Amino acid sequence: MDDRIHEHAEVLVDWSARIEEGDDVVVITDEGAHDLAVAVGEAVGKRNANLLTVYNSGEVERAYLRAHDGEFDENPAPELAMYENADVVLRLAGSTNTTAQADVPGETKQAYNKARMDIRKARLDADWVSTLHPTRAYAQQAGMAYEEYQDFVYSAVLRDWKSLADEMATMKTLLDEGSEVRIVKEDTDLTMSVEERTAVNSCATVGYDSHNLPSGEVFTAPYATEGEVFFDVPMTLQGNRIQNVHLTFEGGEVVDFSAETGEDELADILDTDEGARKLGELGIGMNRGIDRFTDSILFDEKMGDTVHLAVGRAYDACLPEGETGNESAVHIDMITDMSEESRMEVDGEVVQRNGTFRWEDGFEE
Amino acid sequence: MDDRIHEHAEVLVDWSARIEEGDDVVVITDEGAHDLAVAVGEAVGKRNANLLTVYNSGEVERAYLRAHDGEFDENPAPELAMYENADVVLRLAGSTNTTAQADVPGETKQAYNKARMDIRKARLDADWVSTLHPTRAYAQQAGMAYEEYQDFVYSAVLRDWKSLADEMATMKTLLDEGSEVRIVKEDTDLTMSVEERTAVNSCATVGYDSHNLPSGEVFTAPYATEGEVFFDVPMTLQGNRIQNVHLTFEGGEVVDFSAETGEDELADILDTDEGARKLGELGIGMNRGIDRFTDSILFDEKMGDTVHLAVGRAYDACLPEGETGNESAVHIDMITDMSEESRMEVDGEVVQRNGTFRWEDGFEE
Repeated sequence: MDDRIHEHAEVLVDWSARIEEGDDVVVITDEGAHDLAVAVGEAVGKRNANLLTVYNSGEVERAYLRAHDGEFDENPAPELAMYENADVVLRLAGSTNTTAQADVPGETKQAYNKARMDIRKARLDADWVSTLHPTRAYAQQAGMAYEEYQDFVYSAVLRDWKSLADEMATMKTLLDEGSEVRIVKEDTDLTMSVEERTAVNSCATVGYDSHNLPSGEVFTAPYATEGEVFFDVPMTLQGNRIQNVHLTFEGGEVVDFSAETGEDELADILDTDEGARKLGELGIGMNRGIDRFTDSILFDEKMGDTVHLAVGRAYDACLPEGETGNESAVHIDMITDMSEESRMEVDGEVVQRNGTFRWEDGFEE
Repeated sequence: MDDRIHEHAEVLVDWSARIEEGDDVVVITDEGAHDLAVAVGEAVGKRNANLLTVYNSGEVERAYLRAHDGEFDENPAPELAMYENADVVLRLAGSTNTTAQADVPGETKQAYNKARMDIRKARLDADWVSTLHPTRAYAQQAGMAYEEYQDFVYSAVLRDWKSLADEMATMKTLLDEGSEVRIVKEDTDLTMSVEERTAVNSCATVGYDSHNLPSGEVFTAPYATEGEVFFDVPMTLQGNRIQNVHLTFEGGEVVDFSAETGEDELADILDTDEGARKLGELGIGMNRGIDRFTDSILFDEKMGDTVHLAVGRAYDACLPEGETGNESAVHIDMITDMSEESRMEVDGEVVQRNGTFRWEDGFEE
């Protein structure tokens, strides 16, 4: 087995999930994540924790959902009890066909998920971490060769997380103590307030309340946005590619927009509700192991030297106690490259220029 | 997908497990049983029951067991709670390597199983059924080509179970009402008492308290065995082939024995304890879909036109209320071919001759 699979399992079990002796661990494995499941089994055994492995097959679920009449029982007891008794839940994504459920009606899937809200809550109440095993299906979705994609994934996952967490803590402090963030690049000069908002250091460990491996972003909930912004990294939303989006903000709201590709889809998003025209998130991608767009939000939004902004719902963790932030039915991330001819300022002070942070060698004031 | 996989799933869910709307079903799938898991997912969905699929990978378990220090926690809560809340448990055997755990120390495996006795009990307290999906690994173990083995498995599984159950009920009645069974063939003339003993109609459905698919045997707990018997179907015990066994009984006990292959292993078995020299089971194989030895007890002992006898422990289900039958740490089945030059008598009346039962066409009194 590729050594990197064992290293991936060690990072997952140790840094991300912090598994200790006697922990009750539930591992949810996709049909294509077998090798990672074996390595995780070994890593869980080495810590003398307890292991139960659930099979999360897109094909089994498709067959089940299509055959069912659609009136699902609420929160079936075996699965609910399993998660309620788990200390740790690890999700190993490893699809063998990312469109395995293409012919399951959307309403069936929604009804199924809706009937399982308590199961979902029980799962999220455990120390849960979601990660991804590189499969040929994901490589294909990313438009990459299989071995090329493996290199990509392990480069993103096998980081010096402790060191990255420290660096991200510096970024968090800047945002927490700052009032206004300004982003300047081609077709972009955008300001937003982050006053009284708290940034989250998302560094791929439950120790920091971060539940994805890889991670590597610092995010907060901005408001009072003014100016224009250009997003040059593409995205796929419900099967539609949206590319080269341009937004203009006045008084915190989008007042003008365009997109080279997918402008209709963009219009639909912005028209969802009132909150869909306001920002819900400012995220700063700091994982330099992720150096290209692969059409997977798990990776894309953490890409080093990028910034993403989401229109729509804000995360509670970023808001002052008891305060509600921007509310919306949507939360759509859009990414812009900050590696060249660009700068980010906090309260007028440049903190990143052309992809280099102020605490790094080569930074130009 | 091979239609027979869907038929297999239908027999399993319908005849064997009797799954109904709203049942909480846990499916345990081996790594090589994916296709059957998909078909079972569909069949469970069609009945509007609830589905949770557990991944039973020999390789994941091997990695876990070898890494663990061997002091296992007793009955980890997530798995125990899962089975305690299950109405139905289906086990889909589908190994990709029947020796996947060859390098796991026996004492580790024993300690693991011992720490999980309550989990095992909870699983067996549900309506559980164990079946097998044909894999290349099983084909290889049986010494067969893959497609040949698939034909073999489906021929055993896809029976007219209702009709076979009726036929087996006739056999059960003969044994229940009879006092003495006699088996006569080459090197064999054996009598045993079945007085006051109750035969079990094992016809692959929880409705008859039968938990294997395929099944197809009627068995009881004989005693007071006298005479000699020759077993011409081979068996493998802990990796050792044992073949052409000859036993001589006096006063219910083995007083002499020989084996063409594996005589030392046979001696070890018979010397285990006092009960290891007495019979614990007389089983009559009635599944004519199973027409050859494949080195798998799930199939071998149900082979049509065979009889098997086990030295060692008797099953409680065959004994009068409150009575204990033969007790032993072992229960070792040995099979003899009854298709030619042979007969079985109950109280002096021939009930099977040369593989034909008395209620069948062609039977010669």
